Amino acid sequence: MSHPELVSPGWDEERVLGLMGTLSNRERWGIDDQRGTLNFISPETRTAASREVRLGRSWSVGRIIDTVGGPFNSHPARHRMHYYGADPISCGDSLDIDIHGMASTHLDALGHEFFEGSLYNGRRVEHEISSVGLNWANVLALSEGIFTRGVLLDVCAVRGVEWLEPTTRITDADLLSAEELSGTRVHTGDAILVHSGYDRAVQAGALANPVVRAGIGPECLPWIRDRQVAVFSGDCIEQLPSPYPRVPFPLHQIGLAAMGLVLLDSVKLDELATVCQDLGQFSFLFTAAPLLIPGGTGSPVNPICTF
Amino acid sequence: MSHPELVSPGWDEERVLGLMGTLSNRERWGIDDQRGTLNFISPETRTAASREVRLGRSWSVGRIIDTVGGPFNSHPARHRMHYYGADPISCGDSLDIDIHGMASTHLDALGHEFFEGSLYNGRRVEHEISSVGLNWANVLALSEGIFTRGVLLDVCAVRGVEWLEPTTRITDADLLSAEELSGTRVHTGDAILVHSGYDRAVQAGALANPVVRAGIGPECLPWIRDRQVAVFSGDCIEQLPSPYPRVPFPLHQIGLAAMGLVLLDSVKLDELATVCQDLGQFSFLFTAAPLLIPGGTGSPVNPICTF
Amino acid sequence: MSHPELVSPGWDEERVLGLMGTLSNRERWGIDDQRGTLNFISPETRTAASREVRLGRSWSVGRIIDTVGGPFNSHPARHRMHYYGADPISCGDSLDIDIHGMASTHLDALGHEFFEGSLYNGRRVEHEISSVGLNWANVLALSEGIFTRGVLLDVCAVRGVEWLEPTTRITDADLLSAEELSGTRVHTGDAILVHSGYDRAVQAGALANPVVRAGIGPECLPWIRDRQVAVFSGDCIEQLPSPYPRVPFPLHQIGLAAMGLVLLDSVKLDELATVCQDLGQFSFLFTAAPLLIPGGTGSPVNPICTF
Amino acid sequence: MSHPELVSPGWDEERVLGLMGTLSNRERWGIDDQRGTLNFISPETRTAASREVRLGRSWSVGRIIDTVGGPFNSHPARHRMHYYGADPISCGDSLDIDIHGMASTHLDALGHEFFEGSLYNGRRVEHEISSVGLNWANVLALSEGIFTRGVLLDVCAVRGVEWLEPTTRITDADLLSAEELSGTRVHTGDAILVHSGYDRAVQAGALANPVVRAGIGPECLPWIRDRQVAVFSGDCIEQLPSPYPRVPFPLHQIGLAAMGLVLLDSVKLDELATVCQDLGQFSFLFTAAPLLIPGGTGSPVNPICTF
Repeated sequence: MSHPELVSPGWDEERVLGLMGTLSNRERWGIDDQRGTLNFISPETRTAASREVRLGRSWSVGRIIDTVGGPFNSHPARHRMHYYGADPISCGDSLDIDIHGMASTHLDALGHEFFEGSLYNGRRVEHEISSVGLNWANVLALSEGIFTRGVLLDVCAVRGVEWLEPTTRITDADLLSAEELSGTRVHTGDAILVHSGYDRAVQAGALANPVVRAGIGPECLPWIRDRQVAVFSGDCIEQLPSPYPRVPFPLHQIGLAAMGLVLLDSVKLDELATVCQDLGQFSFLFTAAPLLIPGGTGSPVNPICTF
Repeated sequence: MSHPELVSPGWDEERVLGLMGTLSNRERWGIDDQRGTLNFISPETRTAASREVRLGRSWSVGRIIDTVGGPFNSHPARHRMHYYGADPISCGDSLDIDIHGMASTHLDALGHEFFEGSLYNGRRVEHEISSVGLNWANVLALSEGIFTRGVLLDVCAVRGVEWLEPTTRITDADLLSAEELSGTRVHTGDAILVHSGYDRAVQAGALANPVVRAGIGPECLPWIRDRQVAVFSGDCIEQLPSPYPRVPFPLHQIGLAAMGLVLLDSVKLDELATVCQDLGQFSFLFTAAPLLIPGGTGSPVNPICTF
Repeated sequence: MSHPELVSPGWDEERVLGLMGTLSNRERWGIDDQRGTLNFISPETRTAASREVRLGRSWSVGRIIDTVGGPFNSHPARHRMHYYGADPISCGDSLDIDIHGMASTHLDALGHEFFEGSLYNGRRVEHEISSVGLNWANVLALSEGIFTRGVLLDVCAVRGVEWLEPTTRITDADLLSAEELSGTRVHTGDAILVHSGYDRAVQAGALANPVVRAGIGPECLPWIRDRQVAVFSGDCIEQLPSPYPRVPFPLHQIGLAAMGLVLLDSVKLDELATVCQDLGQFSFLFTAAPLLIPGGTGSPVNPICTF
Repeated sequence: MSHPELVSPGWDEERVLGLMGTLSNRERWGIDDQRGTLNFISPETRTAASREVRLGRSWSVGRIIDTVGGPFNSHPARHRMHYYGADPISCGDSLDIDIHGMASTHLDALGHEFFEGSLYNGRRVEHEISSVGLNWANVLALSEGIFTRGVLLDVCAVRGVEWLEPTTRITDADLLSAEELSGTRVHTGDAILVHSGYDRAVQAGALANPVVRAGIGPECLPWIRDRQVAVFSGDCIEQLPSPYPRVPFPLHQIGLAAMGLVLLDSVKLDELATVCQDLGQFSFLFTAAPLLIPGGTGSPVNPICTF
């Protein structure tokens, strides 16, 4: 399956492959580092981020966990109510959830995705992954969670649409325009949240094919690295399908494996976009903390934006 | 199994049963309220809590999820690494976890526990619980999570011990002493974190019986309600076993069902206690947000304390 | 939801309720019995059943386990391939399956269903069921499995249809006609397999509503008891929905709780029906053995018919 | 880890590797065959096997599914009782089980284990296994189950011990002696059940190390192939650990991948051994049928021996 029409002008596969080297943060924070761009979040970053809170109101950008399934999610989570006897004093339940996929908003550990057998910081798949779990750059390396400034980059708003058509590629120009709209400059340690209107598109029935989705093009990655973004999040990931046979997931593979860029997939942004517009404020304190799953490749999370 | 030796002086079963009425917050926030004491967290509370951040450092008080099991946890979570083909580009996994029990740090939805068939705000078990889930006061009511000031109440420190013996009852006097030690006054909207040294006791082999555990006595509950605490947390829950046959879990049953007190069970506090002592600061921004499990009775969480 | 049109002539709710007593096998095999009608299978029955094998050919009447789900099954099983390392020597997997429901062909333990709080042989729900499992008449009581003569009762064939319309009630007259067609007489210890053409109906799109299904009426139960049938099976169960508010599942409730009739739900019979017609033989050796699930309420099985 | 003391005299690794070729049944039943030695079970075999039934009594040799875990099984199955409402009419549950391992008696599909990337009948791992399941020689190929003569080979009895010491290698001479004791000759299409006294050893505390276990040596395999055995079963598998670095599981790898020998792991044989001795009969009808798991690598089963 080749998709030449999706190739960004000037961005052929060779150039994209080159990003694996030019954007690499290998050994930037030492050969033992497993936290990648979370290193951009310094104590000063956290303190400054806390001062974003002026209104004292919090909004969740977590997706309600899908326990039903459907055309856009073939792997729903399983929620079970447990029996506690004929005259119980409590009710309890269990959740069986795939960490990745479309069932939930989730954080990716840096070791989740790789490129030609290499994980973040140069480790090898054959040494670091076993049936017991991900040994290197797993989610426990992110235990302290994300506590930093978040900036909404509302690509829908700058393009003047409710949602991006499924075949849309988001470019670095889009991110710049959205940054301008936000009235703030993305800087070291920020989390960016890219709004593509995905949920509106699903609700409107505008997504015919669950694997053809608007998303960022590889030309965004140098910008993200330049600005020293700590966390990429959004209601979109990379544009799918990828036009690059050797790099089926450019954001995930270059981001996680080369850049050590922490990714927080599948947030829900339509309500937040309205809040930001209403408040005229596109930055906020952004908090999310993963479940502490030993050997885990990521974790479902419920990220909170506090204004 | 009767345990008269565990009864607090002056606190017979009749008096404990009376708390179901005298401490009740039924309809305090309206008959439709499902958030209980989270209502104590106002925008002002959040803004003020954010100003607790001065150092810019975060500590997790989440427990690493137990995927192995043992004498203190007969229901470990199940973590599975998934197969993605002979030449994969990513690794993924799933987690199957009981929401309650000893496998994880978790938030209780207010409908999780009941007293003689009644849930928070006067709803009835037979109407509000089904195989599909908890209909009333489930975890989605807590979607925005906890964002408030946390105060460590270090009962170990005030008693001068590494850990409380398993048969210890924590009293309101203990909480007052710990508050005094903290140098701050617990006030409306705070989360309190009660330190009993549970993990140290387990490590030292001082817990012979997993169901005999130090914990708070019912005499603490009036104090918690007077101070308008929003969240009770700790490395202990109520003293177990309960000496009251009709109230096997006083904190959970009176707290959740009558007071609408949000409970966050099984945090790990030994390291935090050291941090607080070293910094001479026992208050901090406390954040935790539940997974958005439809019909869920609670959620595993990874709470973060930011100083 | 009342369905007077589904009431068999002469079979009002009162009469159906009466079957709980008149058909009861309580204490027939002793107050400690948990095997019910499997007691009809004597050594002589087994030996005779083995002589049904003349052709030496086996057919499975098990349903392929549904791991996908759809309108006729909202609770698919979950099948997961496990990761075993970068250079594995084997592949393995796990299955997470609801014992009952539409995901699989399964055997019901006698304690699976009850009537007004009573289980098979007069035990009470409140004493025999806990979070640990079904204590009484669970699937371990059926460990030796079913090894007996099976007789196909082809109701489709006697009615001259490919499948029964969803609102069809199968009567004792249908069973008698099907028995006549089979050329043999149903006798003590037999397993009967009632063919309603369910799978053909699903394939043909003739089932609009998954909970409106052709099935046996309560008038069949006295016949089943008279003939001392050991196992009821079929590609149908009772007619659904039940027209009797107090007995929502007449076959299951009267069969399991009163008669101790072993039920084997959801076999696939269309191919077997063709085989029987082609061979002119409607009886065979019928074998099925449950998984030995401690406290289990039943088990998925793959029943085999050997001619 | 090298274990020269476990090498059978005359059976160095080179010779064992040679068995992959000399014992191979590749294309013996056609290049599309996925049933392997089940092809030895002809209609005549089944009919004759049915005549083994004279007494009319059945014994299960299935292991009760382990839902608890312990030193000999780190991956217990999970059994959950489900909540069905405040006034239920039935109880139900779910089972989450690893197909392989020590939790259950189970059948191996031929594609379960491989040798240097090759599956049964010459297929390649990289083409036949995906996240969706095992595509080639999966358990659906064994849908009709096993219906054949079983022969108990009581190695304990011929060696005059209650159980074999954990470091014991079972040789072809042991099988011959056990065959002689059985009073019958193993022939085409038989299932053999090798009795090593494993459960007695566990109960007696004679197994110090769960991965050091008595089992058959590679010298048994030519005999098994010569006799055209259809199914290998036993309360032992190959001797563990394997002394052959390139063949860590000789029985599984040579048996499944080269010979297409159907394996039925972890039956419980102590009671059956007593029955056989008491009856003076070591052959019987042996039946087992796998759950129909699409893409499954095997299935838990409850095998039945009928005399």
